[in-house]
Amino acid sequence: MNVTLLAGGVGGARLAHGLDLALRAALTETPTTTPSAPDGGPVPRPAPAPPLTVVVNVGDDTELHGLSISPDIDTVVYTLAGLNDEDRGWGLRGESYATLSALKDLGEDTWFTLGDRDLATHIVRTARLHHGEKLSAVTAHLARAMGVRPRVLPVTDDRLATFVDTPSGRLGFQEYFVGRQHADAVLGLHFAGADAARPAPGVLDALAAELVVLAPSNPFLSIEPLLAVRGVREALAMAPGRRVAVSPIVGGQAIKGPAAQILESLGHEVSALGVARIYADLVDVMVIDERDARLAGPVADLGLTVHVTDTVMGGPPGRERLARELLALA
Amino acid sequence: MNVTLLAGGVGGARLAHGLDLALRAALTETPTTTPSAPDGGPVPRPAPAPPLTVVVNVGDDTELHGLSISPDIDTVVYTLAGLNDEDRGWGLRGESYATLSALKDLGEDTWFTLGDRDLATHIVRTARLHHGEKLSAVTAHLARAMGVRPRVLPVTDDRLATFVDTPSGRLGFQEYFVGRQHADAVLGLHFAGADAARPAPGVLDALAAELVVLAPSNPFLSIEPLLAVRGVREALAMAPGRRVAVSPIVGGQAIKGPAAQILESLGHEVSALGVARIYADLVDVMVIDERDARLAGPVADLGLTVHVTDTVMGGPPGRERLARELLALA
Repeated sequence: MNVTLLAGGVGGARLAHGLDLALRAALTETPTTTPSAPDGGPVPRPAPAPPLTVVVNVGDDTELHGLSISPDIDTVVYTLAGLNDEDRGWGLRGESYATLSALKDLGEDTWFTLGDRDLATHIVRTARLHHGEKLSAVTAHLARAMGVRPRVLPVTDDRLATFVDTPSGRLGFQEYFVGRQHADAVLGLHFAGADAARPAPGVLDALAAELVVLAPSNPFLSIEPLLAVRGVREALAMAPGRRVAVSPIVGGQAIKGPAAQILESLGHEVSALGVARIYADLVDVMVIDERDARLAGPVADLGLTVHVTDTVMGGPPGRERLARELLALA
Repeated sequence: MNVTLLAGGVGGARLAHGLDLALRAALTETPTTTPSAPDGGPVPRPAPAPPLTVVVNVGDDTELHGLSISPDIDTVVYTLAGLNDEDRGWGLRGESYATLSALKDLGEDTWFTLGDRDLATHIVRTARLHHGEKLSAVTAHLARAMGVRPRVLPVTDDRLATFVDTPSGRLGFQEYFVGRQHADAVLGLHFAGADAARPAPGVLDALAAELVVLAPSNPFLSIEPLLAVRGVREALAMAPGRRVAVSPIVGGQAIKGPAAQILESLGHEVSALGVARIYADLVDVMVIDERDARLAGPVADLGLTVHVTDTVMGGPPGRERLARELLALA
């Protein structure tokens, strides 16, 4: 089976990890008959395409100290590589901060925490982008170098920058999210460049997978900018496979980040039902948490199949369990 | 007194440090009469120009991992800031190498050692150069941020790259110097861009100082590329102040690096006299080590004033002592 996940940062990365584990386990469990060549020897076969493609938001991307930073891509790649800091939820395990400390001593503004090992990723990405390589190619290189098996695709190689309208005015995404700790009320979102941004090579094809999953990422900050890229929303709406969304809202709260506040400030119901209404025209199945079982009826009334389960993934076993349930939905 | 030092890396940096110490001590020792305004109050005066300007070679500059590296400038700035690693002779004290280790894990070629704190310098320089700032302005910013008082000037803001002709062909400078540990015989030198390179703002003015010193740096790898910049050799030849060169060769050997081998392979005598012959048309005074006192006569025969002293500086006290002797020569 081939699976495509549309993902933002942490929630997307965890489900990507679960899907990778589940698909690899499935491959091992499936009995395969090795075809024989006419002379009885094994038939050489090309390496199969990776069964999992993760299409990642780039609206959070930013430039700091002249370095190109792609936080969601890095969270997905680090998590798939098993290098991420599970406790903190972002960045690499066992980081040190000597370069950041020196940047501060040089008078640089260091409100955005960058670890020494993380910086290597940004240095390599920046150098390759400056030499004309596309973000999708750079991402493939970095993922390969870190031993990641699934294909990780930025949704676009073109510029797409999320801006957040707040009572204090329009803020750049990282200023809103990291600089001001997403404390401002969100009155609207603007995805600069989205009208002109073309899907990166492979993105539209990936939406034709047997299973397409919308990760339990922030619907506005992670999934909306993905869908805003030219042709992506349309391709998802017409996708031939099973389309499943996992609610990032559990018991009226977000697992992580400001999704609940944004649902509220933008006039949506702060619940899995509110999320289901946003995705109703794009997916076939809505996965909601067992704590929200009472919402199964109203979600079904939207014309969606409802799957109720424990959606809070936690560590790798929980991720793999949820992923197996999603695979069973296809 | 104002002093200009033409410098490469370590030897130049140490003498720059000594001159800074000696000039600051001289300022403190000199009794000053504070002029009075007509109303008896103090006269506001503009900050005086720094008494020391260090004009630094950029022929060693290179780009690694997309970052602009200026090894000689950094050695001078780090040494003047008191941040350099005295034992090793290059880089910063107390460095760590987490980013380099991660770069290696990403498949980058890490033959050139870059510390975490050192990388901050390169990151800031690269970002500012990409935004159109000149190397001289970036260097001034970095020096100021590190608390350096003397003015540190790259000899040019234009591209100037030293290439080394060897039996194995023409090598880029850092490939020759770091990559192959300057083990190849040097058959010739090529300063790419030198014909078109213009002196950075302030360089020609600095050569009109009361004292101009050629540091005990490598005559071919450090001083020649400086002099190759358009108009610099001519300005030095006609400079109105006292021009003094310090021999980097002591007892037939270089204090550090491949100066002795290069003198030999290029057909020069490997001695302070060999160096004096190279500089004879450009300086008034040749400073040679007391171990080479027997060469004082032959050097004087070139039409140069000879000053014999202990030229091996070692730590700060030795640097300041040598610098005081140089100041006395002016």
